[in-house]
Amino acid sequence: MPICTIKLLEGRTDEQKKALVEKVTQAIQETTGAGPEHITVILEEMQRNHYAVGGVRASDK
Amino acid sequence: MPICTIKLLEGRTDEQKKALVEKVTQAIQETTGAGPEHITVILEEMQRNHYAVGGVRASDK
Amino acid sequence: MPICTIKLLEGRTDEQKKALVEKVTQAIQETTGAGPEHITVILEEMQRNHYAVGGVRASDK
Amino acid sequence: MPICTIKLLEGRTDEQKKALVEKVTQAIQETTGAGPEHITVILEEMQRNHYAVGGVRASDK
Amino acid sequence: MPICTIKLLEGRTDEQKKALVEKVTQAIQETTGAGPEHITVILEEMQRNHYAVGGVRASDK
Amino acid sequence: MPICTIKLLEGRTDEQKKALVEKVTQAIQETTGAGPEHITVILEEMQRNHYAVGGVRASDK
Repeated sequence: MPICTIKLLEGRTDEQKKALVEKVTQAIQETTGAGPEHITVILEEMQRNHYAVGGVRASDK
Repeated sequence: MPICTIKLLEGRTDEQKKALVEKVTQAIQETTGAGPEHITVILEEMQRNHYAVGGVRASDK
Repeated sequence: MPICTIKLLEGRTDEQKKALVEKVTQAIQETTGAGPEHITVILEEMQRNHYAVGGVRASDK
Repeated sequence: MPICTIKLLEGRTDEQKKALVEKVTQAIQETTGAGPEHITVILEEMQRNHYAVGGVRASDK
Repeated sequence: MPICTIKLLEGRTDEQKKALVEKVTQAIQETTGAGPEHITVILEEMQRNHYAVGGVRASDK
Repeated sequence: MPICTIKLLEGRTDEQKKALVEKVTQAIQETTGAGPEHITVILEEMQRNHYAVGGVRASDK
């Protein structure tokens, strides 16, 4: 039943997203023993002007 | 003060979303006793290539 | 595939939580057409000193 | 290491978002003592038909 | 209507949490123009063995 | 900059959690190209009476 949500900056290709989802599902399966049909992965893309570290947005660098 | 966030695949009509929000608010009110003015419902749509069960995205089926 | 997360102040009885989860699942099913086996509901309790409106925490009222 | 996520209705200008991110980062730094390089702020805009209080969406008022 | 959720490592005093919530509310009010009664702040504490950067948990350092 | 949050039912050992965090970090690094120091993983345990599929909580099965 694990539900995994990954926030990442926009800009990855669809191939990268596909691989990301597959590998993370595998990693969760191997380490928790959950059946793959019970593992959910959700991607959430962030715009560069909506993400900041130290008060500086990715879009302002 | 309940805050309810519903993630769902994109593709519902605006009528469905309106009904969803109304019914869920009602369900929360009836069971928790919270006043409706204190119940917040937020919808978050997921793209089909951003949601996977068992490592397979909805867009890849 | 809807995933519904409800944050609420601690203090509800287990009966209330059970009813909440059942009614909200029903409300989502009726309005989105999703099969019940695809509807997930998660409750997240908040401590009263971890929740504030207008800068005043529930624990400080 | 604080991670701050702010959901807000769409419609703020980029200047407002920039100021929001800066001021919130400062507020977290001053009160928690975390170094700014360890403070992340994420904005998430909500569409007006995806946000409701009391069962009424912002788009239906 | 902004809803701000701050995840932070456990260990802050209640005084620090109170100040954090007050200052962040103020920062949101000043920069978005939202009335304080519409600003919600939620704190979520993370255990040190539930938080990792670079694959190393805070509890394993 | 990816931030990965994994909700899972309580009951895993600390060893399992450690391995989970390491493997997921690796999976994100390999597929997104992000440096490990920019990858955050957060675990959130759910009580069995706070998690339901199809309206039935894990604690009521």
